[in-house]
Amino acid sequence: MPLVECVPNFSEGRRPEIVDRIVAAAESVGGVKAIDRSMDASHNRAVVTLVGEGELVGEAAFRAIREASLAIDLNVHQGEHPRIGATDVVPFVPLEGATMGYCIRLAHRLGERVGRELAIPVYFYEQAALRPERKNLPDVRNIGYEKLRDAVKTDPARTPDEGPKAALHPTAGATVIGARQFLIAFNVNLKTHDVALAKEIAKKIREKDGGLAGIKAMGFFLDDLKLAQVSMNVCDYRATGLDRVFDEISELARAKGVDVHESELVGLAPRAALGADTARHVKLRGFDAGKQIIEALL
Amino acid sequence: MPLVECVPNFSEGRRPEIVDRIVAAAESVGGVKAIDRSMDASHNRAVVTLVGEGELVGEAAFRAIREASLAIDLNVHQGEHPRIGATDVVPFVPLEGATMGYCIRLAHRLGERVGRELAIPVYFYEQAALRPERKNLPDVRNIGYEKLRDAVKTDPARTPDEGPKAALHPTAGATVIGARQFLIAFNVNLKTHDVALAKEIAKKIREKDGGLAGIKAMGFFLDDLKLAQVSMNVCDYRATGLDRVFDEISELARAKGVDVHESELVGLAPRAALGADTARHVKLRGFDAGKQIIEALL
Repeated sequence: MPLVECVPNFSEGRRPEIVDRIVAAAESVGGVKAIDRSMDASHNRAVVTLVGEGELVGEAAFRAIREASLAIDLNVHQGEHPRIGATDVVPFVPLEGATMGYCIRLAHRLGERVGRELAIPVYFYEQAALRPERKNLPDVRNIGYEKLRDAVKTDPARTPDEGPKAALHPTAGATVIGARQFLIAFNVNLKTHDVALAKEIAKKIREKDGGLAGIKAMGFFLDDLKLAQVSMNVCDYRATGLDRVFDEISELARAKGVDVHESELVGLAPRAALGADTARHVKLRGFDAGKQIIEALL
Repeated sequence: MPLVECVPNFSEGRRPEIVDRIVAAAESVGGVKAIDRSMDASHNRAVVTLVGEGELVGEAAFRAIREASLAIDLNVHQGEHPRIGATDVVPFVPLEGATMGYCIRLAHRLGERVGRELAIPVYFYEQAALRPERKNLPDVRNIGYEKLRDAVKTDPARTPDEGPKAALHPTAGATVIGARQFLIAFNVNLKTHDVALAKEIAKKIREKDGGLAGIKAMGFFLDDLKLAQVSMNVCDYRATGLDRVFDEISELARAKGVDVHESELVGLAPRAALGADTARHVKLRGFDAGKQIIEALL
């Protein structure tokens, strides 16, 4: 039974009763659990985390998208975050027993169905992208609903992958659907006040500046602990795992005479990202497998 | 217009007229070209390289599979190479304008159709695999037709992804369909007789022994040129490109006081694998973009 995570983003961050309805629609599929939800009023946006067996999560995502299309009208939606749809983005993420290919198929099938049954145009992104220029979410989404509404009529570069080809849904806009690896938020705290060192290490290890594959990193000073921190998103733990990035940071710090104090996992991680000895090796603070390994929550 | 390559393998390497019929069936789709075919009598196997626009190549692959299922009977097929089907393996490979996600979708759609219309069971592999244990082709295929015919009836680990679930096709067996990156055969010749150095470098750079992502490598002595050669398959040029692997080999050779003589491309490469300066940088011998860049052949 392949397990997947699905993290749909909805353009509603102010009316909790709407998000309740969307979550209820998703959880009406037996075996699917919404293990997390968050709302942001200034972004006017909600993020829901669904987990369960792949086919069931695909059905739950469909029902959530349908509910959002009935409850949210993009024409009266305001918020700081760029968005193009009532359901804005829907990534599928492989967990235990699932491959990326399996999640890509879930994304493609969901997109086909959303286009056909709900008449909402769909763009595929990241691993599910059908066009190279749609791999990056911002390139698909940052035009925003209001501009896309016009552009879709005239600009072939904006033609949807599924659903109506030349007009957005009159209230629900369009939806971006795709597949990606699990995103792990991982921080390493250094035994130093020197935030410049944390920033320097962050720059060395992040992919953008020629560092490690899938690593996004920044340096911060933690006021409470009085320590410098390298704060990361580990975007492809199969390419660069927690052990690897920890070792790299340790080595760079040690070269400046600084030790690592501890590391921390913010939120959840998939089981496959933590080897038998990883938690000890990376000095993970207060790690609780029963609460932080996503598959253990099911 | 996304271009793709498709390289179906058929269990027929002795009767050219059968391979002719299969190729004719594929090329009956306008716009699809068979740019290469090879037959091996002892393996009793043929490999055909189709290129063209993605949807058309998908249609061509379907017609080739259908023709092979009419012309080849696995029950009387003998050959040294492991195989499970009349059409044994069908990989889709992204070329200019195509993503891996696009090729995965072509694979999944073809598999669904082959299962439904031809009643041939289908297993998905590599990037299109739906189960982690099916990513590796040998794990899916090396059981062979005769054993799989029984195993499919009793062993849930052998249940096909598409098509009939509990019995192979009576003559065409089963087919493995998937998506992968373009495989580039790339060799670097060293100015030395010392084959041990080539073998040592090969070991250092190949992925299997902790080297570079997607690199398979061996060391040889070239009798004609009297040079040692590092012979490679570059299996994921987006992870490790020709420049990168060349630089790595140059550096390892130079550390032993040896220079690189030249490199060679065996067969074709996709345009995206050769930057503006790559051919010069890697000292590519006799490179002819018009004949060796696959997109240029269309």
